[in-house]
Amino acid sequence: MSSGRATQELLDRLVEGARAAARAGRVADYIPALARARPEAVGAAITSVEGELLESGEARAGFTLQSVSKAIALPYVIDARGEEAVFSRVGKEPTGDPFNSIIRLEASSLKKPYNPMINAGAIVLSSLMPGSTGEERAAGFRGYAAALLGLPSLALDEEVYRSEAATANKNRSIAWFLKELGLVEGEVDEALDGYFRQCATLVDAASLSRCGACLALDGLEPGSAGGSGRRLMSERAARVTKALMCSCGLYDGSGAFCVEAGIPAKSGVGGGILASARGRAGIGSYGPALDPRGNSAAGLSIVEGLSRELGLFAL
Amino acid sequence: MSSGRATQELLDRLVEGARAAARAGRVADYIPALARARPEAVGAAITSVEGELLESGEARAGFTLQSVSKAIALPYVIDARGEEAVFSRVGKEPTGDPFNSIIRLEASSLKKPYNPMINAGAIVLSSLMPGSTGEERAAGFRGYAAALLGLPSLALDEEVYRSEAATANKNRSIAWFLKELGLVEGEVDEALDGYFRQCATLVDAASLSRCGACLALDGLEPGSAGGSGRRLMSERAARVTKALMCSCGLYDGSGAFCVEAGIPAKSGVGGGILASARGRAGIGSYGPALDPRGNSAAGLSIVEGLSRELGLFAL
Amino acid sequence: MSSGRATQELLDRLVEGARAAARAGRVADYIPALARARPEAVGAAITSVEGELLESGEARAGFTLQSVSKAIALPYVIDARGEEAVFSRVGKEPTGDPFNSIIRLEASSLKKPYNPMINAGAIVLSSLMPGSTGEERAAGFRGYAAALLGLPSLALDEEVYRSEAATANKNRSIAWFLKELGLVEGEVDEALDGYFRQCATLVDAASLSRCGACLALDGLEPGSAGGSGRRLMSERAARVTKALMCSCGLYDGSGAFCVEAGIPAKSGVGGGILASARGRAGIGSYGPALDPRGNSAAGLSIVEGLSRELGLFAL
Amino acid sequence: MSSGRATQELLDRLVEGARAAARAGRVADYIPALARARPEAVGAAITSVEGELLESGEARAGFTLQSVSKAIALPYVIDARGEEAVFSRVGKEPTGDPFNSIIRLEASSLKKPYNPMINAGAIVLSSLMPGSTGEERAAGFRGYAAALLGLPSLALDEEVYRSEAATANKNRSIAWFLKELGLVEGEVDEALDGYFRQCATLVDAASLSRCGACLALDGLEPGSAGGSGRRLMSERAARVTKALMCSCGLYDGSGAFCVEAGIPAKSGVGGGILASARGRAGIGSYGPALDPRGNSAAGLSIVEGLSRELGLFAL
Repeated sequence: MSSGRATQELLDRLVEGARAAARAGRVADYIPALARARPEAVGAAITSVEGELLESGEARAGFTLQSVSKAIALPYVIDARGEEAVFSRVGKEPTGDPFNSIIRLEASSLKKPYNPMINAGAIVLSSLMPGSTGEERAAGFRGYAAALLGLPSLALDEEVYRSEAATANKNRSIAWFLKELGLVEGEVDEALDGYFRQCATLVDAASLSRCGACLALDGLEPGSAGGSGRRLMSERAARVTKALMCSCGLYDGSGAFCVEAGIPAKSGVGGGILASARGRAGIGSYGPALDPRGNSAAGLSIVEGLSRELGLFAL
Repeated sequence: MSSGRATQELLDRLVEGARAAARAGRVADYIPALARARPEAVGAAITSVEGELLESGEARAGFTLQSVSKAIALPYVIDARGEEAVFSRVGKEPTGDPFNSIIRLEASSLKKPYNPMINAGAIVLSSLMPGSTGEERAAGFRGYAAALLGLPSLALDEEVYRSEAATANKNRSIAWFLKELGLVEGEVDEALDGYFRQCATLVDAASLSRCGACLALDGLEPGSAGGSGRRLMSERAARVTKALMCSCGLYDGSGAFCVEAGIPAKSGVGGGILASARGRAGIGSYGPALDPRGNSAAGLSIVEGLSRELGLFAL
Repeated sequence: MSSGRATQELLDRLVEGARAAARAGRVADYIPALARARPEAVGAAITSVEGELLESGEARAGFTLQSVSKAIALPYVIDARGEEAVFSRVGKEPTGDPFNSIIRLEASSLKKPYNPMINAGAIVLSSLMPGSTGEERAAGFRGYAAALLGLPSLALDEEVYRSEAATANKNRSIAWFLKELGLVEGEVDEALDGYFRQCATLVDAASLSRCGACLALDGLEPGSAGGSGRRLMSERAARVTKALMCSCGLYDGSGAFCVEAGIPAKSGVGGGILASARGRAGIGSYGPALDPRGNSAAGLSIVEGLSRELGLFAL
Repeated sequence: MSSGRATQELLDRLVEGARAAARAGRVADYIPALARARPEAVGAAITSVEGELLESGEARAGFTLQSVSKAIALPYVIDARGEEAVFSRVGKEPTGDPFNSIIRLEASSLKKPYNPMINAGAIVLSSLMPGSTGEERAAGFRGYAAALLGLPSLALDEEVYRSEAATANKNRSIAWFLKELGLVEGEVDEALDGYFRQCATLVDAASLSRCGACLALDGLEPGSAGGSGRRLMSERAARVTKALMCSCGLYDGSGAFCVEAGIPAKSGVGGGILASARGRAGIGSYGPALDPRGNSAAGLSIVEGLSRELGLFAL
């Protein structure tokens, strides 16, 4: 990154400027635990590949990963089970459908989820995680994620987890269809339970940015010498994940985001965005007020602004 | 690029190695003029941003742009008519459907083509080109394209053009649906005629690589000083185009290609691939034997090999 | 029919009662010639199989057949070209889609229109009519229809024909898709022209009821002795047509109408309904104010009332 | 019916003739209990509205109702809960989709199953039956059905029930989607359990024919005086059911069957067909070898033959 001070000022300015976007957004309200988020909350952080962290606003406010977890589950399962185990059951192609659509499972000749960034793909991956219960699998996932986020451990938001499990009729429908297609390993209910737990993992923007920096180093731990040498994720898993974040990371707004920011990113309805600028830095943002596509309104504004001002457009 | 000599050797090796992939592919046969292509033909070229050209195999063999033209039509219409004129009529999102699908025009609430890289989007763009007849519009397109390819002018392959126009029932169906949606400017038949002519533009791999180098410079002409300063395409058009090539450039294989190569590219059933490595080089390849998704089998092998060996993965 | 007098009184009562339904409907307005229809117009007629005609309200007001023509085109083409020529190109199954949908032509493995009562099926049938131009084919169709309606000849509403031809982008899209599937005989434009002309045939409710009586006699001319013996339509064509009217005759309201009336019927956006009660009578109704599904609001009320009061429910 | 003797000879001839059709069919094999059925088994029965029973072949062989149960569940729930309770949650329209498709639940604006003859509709109806567990509901269903079939009670095929419950991933997927749409009353698992039990009800062709005779009398018990006067089903329920059997009773072959037979019928993959000829008779047939659409090959041949020879075509 250019001078730390200039970047800090830029970050402060973008966080401040994003408050207007936040006011135009809406907090997810399909479960009470998410509906209680403060829509005006905005925070962001950058971790350089050297490991330097800059933060602004509510960069330490806790929120649940939700779909951001898909960008961590993917390298976790690739590293744990191998690429073949994953991509024999899930595709690599973007789909123009909503994240929770079931139509293509029936209509497409592919007979598997189009990619791991939609719910159907993520439920399959949940079933492939080491362990046989949702609880065991989610514990393993949290361990892998904690290393990427630079934390000793990660906690589960019990209330969010319970709410999601109680209202997940559509996801249950998807999961049983996946079982019919032979894509779920083990019990459907355990695959779902693991998925709900993974989505309910508590994080903050600061630690997300560290995960982004690891992706920016193709899986190495950020550190003083442009990569400490400690590998947290295989290089292949990092590249696969970033490629799929690029085409499928922001729901129905993935293409438009790629035009504006030109870097891989993944959003979640909890308000988080994780982004990665190759060889430069990772970005984490928080803002629970969502745009109509389900992406953090403030987060989009901040990440696009950082890409524009820091010249991160990678394509 | 590293040393020119090493790159030349790499290119030669990849072109040679791609002949096996070519043998496993199939030449497009929906019109006789394409069916006559020699499936064993393979060629490729790299143009660095400094303007240095390396080539190997049949890098000067002529073929028609076909869908590669979509990656040139897009910046042409953005530069001629403005971004709003384009994206009020066409989206920016990938679609999991085949390139010539009509379903979403009816089924989706978007009521416009998902992106400019599918036939429906390209027909809309054809109707937006300056001029009122297909002939006028295609002449303008060829002029714009010639500058990008570093040539004084480009020719139309009359036989391919006539064949396509005579067998284009599905494209006619798409075009009338677009007219119903109010997305075609002027006459449907002229939009189609312009589109067929644009697809039948004659090029070779060497000149395609120069176009890729221009995209790699965000629209500047390749030249000795890392960009000659002469702008052939607006910076915004270049970025929009590269972002959409990245998520939608290789038909139903776009996502898998992004995983392997990690750079923007666009293929056509004439056997060409155009690719661009930011700040580094452009790549053009030719190999009319196609894989099941309609992408040049040899071309994929070459471009992915170059990305891997030269470290072009951008994400 | 029971006593002619009681039936006349019933008919008068139902026509009068249907005026309220008419007021809640909306005249078709996609072309000016249809938009000028008086929404309050209501008329109906019954022709017994003995050939006795009862009429009420505006049973002699002229209107265009529109989709009612599909129930006449089907037996015409079956009788002229044979059942195999028809059903090798068009199915016999209802579809849950709108009458002018194109989706299944691409999405379904059937690769032909589901039935002859949707636009796609009717355009295929238009191309199969004797003659090579739309004008010739429509003249043949009008001749066949005139015999069924008990008239010496039928006229074309030139204004409606011209309007439809000028605004038929969606139908053109369907027709080119059908051409791609190899289902249109001859020129696409002639198939469309014939279809527009067929839809623009001028009729009234009284003569429609006579056509219904002919169907009620499985194709015999209505007459004093319970069928005069003169055959206007093959028995097979009559049965096929009535079966398809039953499952597909009233657009997205076919199933609900079958529940209420239990007899074959076909509606058109010109405001007509043609119905047939086996061995009993034919019914024709007119009322250009349409319900949200495109069926004559008054007509539904009248035909359902007649079925209920006269015990026509056939299933 | 004409003379009992002539009809008996006709029935014998048709049953004999159907053995060839049976040999061309295939027994359902998605569960072992069905796969063990003898494909050459053929039987049929007619019950006149006067209550006279004629039978031929294996008319007393037991089989499970499977989808034939939908034609009994519908009047049961209409009579138990009222028409509004049913049709606020399920439509009356045919759908061109397979019986177990989930697509329209997501894609259609209707947001409810198109009709009660597809799995989605039947699962909703199962949830509306009196009782709160699947077992209670199925017991009530069997009581209602037994009266229609003229038997003191009906038994559950435990093995088929258990197999279906164990392999019903697709139905579970549908049921959870219905829950998401707010269409399932009570627990999803109980709605499914009731549905599996209902499908596994043991019947034979002879008793099915008696049920058909009851429908032929609009719900009255067949008996010596052309209807004994004892009402087993409301008249409205009978008519609604017959109308929906007519357009949706034979899976993707409903339209073709209506053309050939012209009477309401419902088939099941257990090999049964239930048909009804208004004011004449009921028909039951058995033949577990199915045609590609899932309808009993022998049964189709027999029912279409009876309609043709006895002049049952009702439209």
